[in-house]
Amino acid sequence: MKHATFEKGVVEMGHGAGGRDMADLIRHLFVTAFDNPDLTGEEDQAILSFPAGRMAISTDAFVVSPMFFPGGDIGALAVNGTVNDVAMGGADPVALSASFILEEGLPLADLARVVGSMAQAARTAGVHIVTGDTKVVERGKGDGIFITTTGFGQVREGVSLSARNGRPGDVVLVSGTLGDHGVAVMGRREGFDFDTNIVSDCAALNGLAGALLDAVPQTRLMRDPTRGGLAAVLNEIAEASRVGIAIREDALPIRPGVAGACEILGLDPLYVANEGKLVAVVPPEQAEIALAALRAHPLGREAAIIGELRADPDHFVEMETAFGGRRMVDWIAGEQLPRIC
Amino acid sequence: MKHATFEKGVVEMGHGAGGRDMADLIRHLFVTAFDNPDLTGEEDQAILSFPAGRMAISTDAFVVSPMFFPGGDIGALAVNGTVNDVAMGGADPVALSASFILEEGLPLADLARVVGSMAQAARTAGVHIVTGDTKVVERGKGDGIFITTTGFGQVREGVSLSARNGRPGDVVLVSGTLGDHGVAVMGRREGFDFDTNIVSDCAALNGLAGALLDAVPQTRLMRDPTRGGLAAVLNEIAEASRVGIAIREDALPIRPGVAGACEILGLDPLYVANEGKLVAVVPPEQAEIALAALRAHPLGREAAIIGELRADPDHFVEMETAFGGRRMVDWIAGEQLPRIC
Ligand SMILES: Nc1ncnc2c1ncn2[C@@H]1O[C@H](COP(=O)(O)OP(=O)(O)OP(=O)(O)O)[C@@H](O)[C@H]1O
Ligand SMILES: Nc1ncnc2c1ncn2[C@@H]1O[C@H](COP(=O)(O)OP(=O)(O)OP(=O)(O)O)[C@@H](O)[C@H]1O
Ligand SMILES: [Mg+2]
Ligand SMILES: [Mg+2]
Ligand SMILES: [Mg+2]
Ligand SMILES: [Mg+2]
Ligand SMILES: [Mg+2]
Ligand SMILES: [Mg+2]
Repeated sequence: MKHATFEKGVVEMGHGAGGRDMADLIRHLFVTAFDNPDLTGEEDQAILSFPAGRMAISTDAFVVSPMFFPGGDIGALAVNGTVNDVAMGGADPVALSASFILEEGLPLADLARVVGSMAQAARTAGVHIVTGDTKVVERGKGDGIFITTTGFGQVREGVSLSARNGRPGDVVLVSGTLGDHGVAVMGRREGFDFDTNIVSDCAALNGLAGALLDAVPQTRLMRDPTRGGLAAVLNEIAEASRVGIAIREDALPIRPGVAGACEILGLDPLYVANEGKLVAVVPPEQAEIALAALRAHPLGREAAIIGELRADPDHFVEMETAFGGRRMVDWIAGEQLPRIC
Repeated sequence: MKHATFEKGVVEMGHGAGGRDMADLIRHLFVTAFDNPDLTGEEDQAILSFPAGRMAISTDAFVVSPMFFPGGDIGALAVNGTVNDVAMGGADPVALSASFILEEGLPLADLARVVGSMAQAARTAGVHIVTGDTKVVERGKGDGIFITTTGFGQVREGVSLSARNGRPGDVVLVSGTLGDHGVAVMGRREGFDFDTNIVSDCAALNGLAGALLDAVPQTRLMRDPTRGGLAAVLNEIAEASRVGIAIREDALPIRPGVAGACEILGLDPLYVANEGKLVAVVPPEQAEIALAALRAHPLGREAAIIGELRADPDHFVEMETAFGGRRMVDWIAGEQLPRIC
């Protein structure tokens, strides 16, 4: 990045003003890092060829604080988070857009690091970042970097997933341990020096989701338990499918270090965000096949069957506790975990 | 909006936490306002059917300050701006995603007003907002509302537009008056009480662009002169097409009130952002047909031929001034117009 545009080493208002400095930043930083034939920085839009069929579209804004955390950063999160929402629709992600809101004074080295990990994450997930946007706001009107990604993917033939598809008797699986991302971010934010094993699970789930659908095309639905954690996803499924859900505390995969950190931080792992896990609901007769398919994938080795759907006019989510009691699992309340993604 | 979620009348951190309050805000405000069958708020992604073909994709973040200004607001801008970037690719926009970064303490009435104008703008443009996201940042870490929209559209058969397509001799047209948007926003920001005729030109250009392409399918390229104004677009075209461009000051449509306000504000209308205008480059023998097609559309009544491309190894943009002199039209320098869109 040797260029007049980068002389001061920080983002300036001029980098968002539509002139030479912005064009240089786009060309020499973003387009160079994202490196793919669909992104030239010369047009107002990207043009891609699509075969006929169903397309999945999803968007997320990323505002995580701090922007670097154990196991990832806002850039990797912005790519993986949107790849995952597209993949949860039974689609193979193809392309992403990426919009940046930068705060004046942001070190360009931080921006370059974030952009580098976006490029790396996109390569790993097999998607191209094909178009973007760069805005700059005055110091104190933003917070370093906000990124919005939007993803597009082709929905697989014969697959039709929906939060409404669950039926009593269906089985609920989770692809691995719960709470890692949220605890890693909160720990860093609060300045705790936890066990170095507590790192974000931030990862692209399209490979894992594809492996599950290959094995069990009858999968009813998939969700990634991000904000609001497993509790939010189960409540959304219960409402949309008009069922109750029963899960078993014993069956939930949670790292002991994460459980301990949750106690210190006053968090409940059921409500903590994950960024590399999926929840799947499958017909009961497919449950073991689904479990085996998840476990056979590097990102699903700790997958588990955690409960099942049942008839319940109240659409309650209940957990059988480790001590044999029962506990309601309600939505997250208030603002337990701000700016986690 | 009579609901516990809306009791305090302002955006709270809990509205972004992934729990009940967020779900209520999404359902009762966004999904209700954007009202279309593809947006239920129940899935992680929208699924749309697409015919085979080329798809145009574009994204923009919107951070305009103030969020309400004469002739529009950040919501209308967020819809029209992205519709326009898709339309400039020769595509008919189909769907948008919309991601919100809200600042804690934002009055819900302001949010509702912005969301209402997005819904209205989407209806006018004939697009659906099919998926979204809602994040909240702490007071002082954002600035009211930031919105990122991403748009998808089908590229018309037989049309192939690119900034690289210009050839010496081609004619440059603009669809109407220059500078209205930027002057309206800057005037409001600086507290000037200009002529009430100075309002943003914020509008969806897909109808106008379609009319031009119907009349002149050989159109080389279209651009909307937003940040950096006409000057930036002409320099981008000159570089990408490896040509020079000559324009005539006399031919530029500029409202007298805007010209006067520019003098007071110390702005040059060539560099001021527009949000409802397009620049088109067409082969010389099609120039009059193109002009007539633009003028026949309500948004193009003041269209004009403003200059032509020419061979120039330096790719300079030059203007013949009203007094018969010549002036270089370079890129915008520095941060003349921050947060204009
Ligand atoms: N951060 C980024 N990463 C990748 N590509 C980018 C980024 N910012 C801009 N681009 C690309 O650079 C080109 C110019 O973007 P720009 O935002 O100036 O265009 P525009 O949207 O037409 O203008 P405006 O944002 O003022 O409306 C586009 O091709 C865009 O995809
Ligand atoms: N501002 C909004 N406008 C329209 N739809 C929205 C908006 N915010 C969220 N939605 C919709 O609500 C649903 C839930 O969104 P949510 O952001 O909770 O899902 P997610 O992206 O899977 O979770 P996360 O953002 O925590 O990763 C989705 O269908 C989404 O399209
Ligand atoms: Mg544009
Ligand atoms: Mg998401
Ligand atoms: Mg842009
Ligand atoms: Mg999700
Ligand atoms: Mg734009
Ligand atoms: Mg989301």
